[in-house]
Amino acid sequence: MATRCCWFESGATLGTARTGTLHTPHGAVPTPAFMPVGTRGTVKGLDPDELVTAGTSIVLANTYHLWERPGHERIRDLGGLHTFMGWDGPLLTDSGGYQVFSLQHRMKLTEDGVRFRSPTDGEERHLTPELAVAIQEAFGVDVAMALDECIETPATEDRTRGAMTRTTRWLQRCLDARTRPDRTALFGIVQGGLYPDLRAEHADTLAAMDLDGLAIGGLSVGEGHEAMMAMVDVVVPRLPGDKVRYLMGVGHPVDIVEAVVRGVDLFDCVLPTRMGRHGQAYTWSGRLNLKNGRFLDDPRPLDPDTPTSPANRFSRAYLAHLLRSDEWLGRRLVTLHNLHLYQQLLAEARACIEAGDGDGLERLRVRAARASSAPSAVVAPGRAGE
Amino acid sequence: MATRCCWFESGATLGTARTGTLHTPHGAVPTPAFMPVGTRGTVKGLDPDELVTAGTSIVLANTYHLWERPGHERIRDLGGLHTFMGWDGPLLTDSGGYQVFSLQHRMKLTEDGVRFRSPTDGEERHLTPELAVAIQEAFGVDVAMALDECIETPATEDRTRGAMTRTTRWLQRCLDARTRPDRTALFGIVQGGLYPDLRAEHADTLAAMDLDGLAIGGLSVGEGHEAMMAMVDVVVPRLPGDKVRYLMGVGHPVDIVEAVVRGVDLFDCVLPTRMGRHGQAYTWSGRLNLKNGRFLDDPRPLDPDTPTSPANRFSRAYLAHLLRSDEWLGRRLVTLHNLHLYQQLLAEARACIEAGDGDGLERLRVRAARASSAPSAVVAPGRAGE
Repeated sequence: MATRCCWFESGATLGTARTGTLHTPHGAVPTPAFMPVGTRGTVKGLDPDELVTAGTSIVLANTYHLWERPGHERIRDLGGLHTFMGWDGPLLTDSGGYQVFSLQHRMKLTEDGVRFRSPTDGEERHLTPELAVAIQEAFGVDVAMALDECIETPATEDRTRGAMTRTTRWLQRCLDARTRPDRTALFGIVQGGLYPDLRAEHADTLAAMDLDGLAIGGLSVGEGHEAMMAMVDVVVPRLPGDKVRYLMGVGHPVDIVEAVVRGVDLFDCVLPTRMGRHGQAYTWSGRLNLKNGRFLDDPRPLDPDTPTSPANRFSRAYLAHLLRSDEWLGRRLVTLHNLHLYQQLLAEARACIEAGDGDGLERLRVRAARASSAPSAVVAPGRAGE
Repeated sequence: MATRCCWFESGATLGTARTGTLHTPHGAVPTPAFMPVGTRGTVKGLDPDELVTAGTSIVLANTYHLWERPGHERIRDLGGLHTFMGWDGPLLTDSGGYQVFSLQHRMKLTEDGVRFRSPTDGEERHLTPELAVAIQEAFGVDVAMALDECIETPATEDRTRGAMTRTTRWLQRCLDARTRPDRTALFGIVQGGLYPDLRAEHADTLAAMDLDGLAIGGLSVGEGHEAMMAMVDVVVPRLPGDKVRYLMGVGHPVDIVEAVVRGVDLFDCVLPTRMGRHGQAYTWSGRLNLKNGRFLDDPRPLDPDTPTSPANRFSRAYLAHLLRSDEWLGRRLVTLHNLHLYQQLLAEARACIEAGDGDGLERLRVRAARASSAPSAVVAPGRAGE
């Protein structure tokens, strides 16, 4: 095995939960960690300093969007994605597959790859495992994700197995296509839908491959919290302990803390940013729809239990005024607040695990469930990019 | 004369240019000073700390917009406009008249005030000099502007005189209506259109009244730089030297520096923020339309000659990508950049005057003219609120 540019260093354990450090060419990520989603090379509305201040150590960007605009070769010629977006910490990109498969009737799948007509410029494009790796290496990111076949949920077992085995073949092609393993790590993605046997089989398959990290894909697509955790329970114990474990596209605070308890190290989700942009604030007392008129006279800060939140210097009344007036400062402040709450959740989880504080972790599970409680479900989760 | 809550302290002079300090209940404003426009209680997209970092010491907010939404009584009950918008420095509001008069066929003028149907909620409203003062006192701002009659430019001399004399009568009513002169100062507005004799007459009239400061209104409405400066040349020498002089709604960097040379102390304009929001950057080498495709491959920082600009950590290529992708970070960074350049212009002007550096001030005039040069005029100036 060649020297890895990214590797996982184990830390403390508490039951099945663990801390650790993901070492990358652009720095160390204390895990468990949450990656905000910077779809087009920007976490919408926020600057890199604000991400750091919120406690962010690694950012996810979307290959599909950046491939289409401004293009991976342009980003490479401008010095790579880190330079381009002004983020010199660890960067991970997805493979672009999730977005292409979401085009459905506009895409055509073959063993070679996925052919589709771009909604952006109308041109026909062809995404292959090799190209997915080449694009991400052109970005120069620390972690590239392998191209996988994404299918609808629920799907039949036959169809799920078919996608799973193709994902394995494509993963091998991704491994073979790498030209810069010294700079960009490659993670594989465990598929298998909601079938425990398939999930177990695929986890075993990927555990035996020469990967830098392992992700669990195809979840957080409407299957619900219990079904999601059932798959996490099947997969995580079969993954090698010396590699980082990444649950893709998850989720609400309660989903994250429950997966942390089960030994997951890495997360990404559009929820805190997308919700924030739409005026939905996570607070430790539950979610608030700040556009609701009842907040127009509420002089209280948004959430004193998220003490680092920059939104707390303003009243809920001001935030409601901004959001109802379609003022971008409102979207920005609530986005930033949600990100602070998420990163506080992860920091508290790490602290509990490091301290061996099982009671603290139990309390955090209860608090995360409360923080996730909805006044009304207005925005669907997902990681299709924002 | 009662003790004033706001007063002007003279500083250095250089020819007709001068520095000074406008003292207010919320702190001191080194003049000449530029006020960014926070129409709805927010300088679009920016937080108060960013305004301070850019060198801002005083902010303007729009009475009309905040009166309509969320309402001046609500803002009063929430602790006043400073608390509401999280800005504890000096605050000035306009009277709301400029916006109401811009409604034209939807407003009806009488000696009592202006009656109009609100475009926001369809309700009939009636703005009088007394109400304009009451609203601004409810905000608790440091400086209130008197309600004036705004007319089109050009207008006949008769019509201009009529508006001017009504403005004087309304100004006296504003003075009589004040209930909190200990907290909120009142500035009057010199009108008179483009008629030097009327401007002179009105300046003399207002100079004799018990005002805390004097503004020049009705300019920057399409009359052009030369006509604007001609009116400034008429008015400024007739204003009392111990009161602050405010040129409303002005302007491009060149307009500002030329008015500073003529002895103006205070400015506001939507240009740096509105331009920035539309991807138009002021640089010391001229204005740039960053949405232009030629910037997509430009690795250079936006403007090294504005060294404090937070936009300089990114390439023009990234800014162009953000703006073309309709990403709010792009609008935010260019807005912030423009504000840094404007405040740098004012800081350099103050430094030249303080140092008695006439050559430096001459160079600044040349540089400001260059900074104002347009690739194409895409956004009209004005102060109707953003």
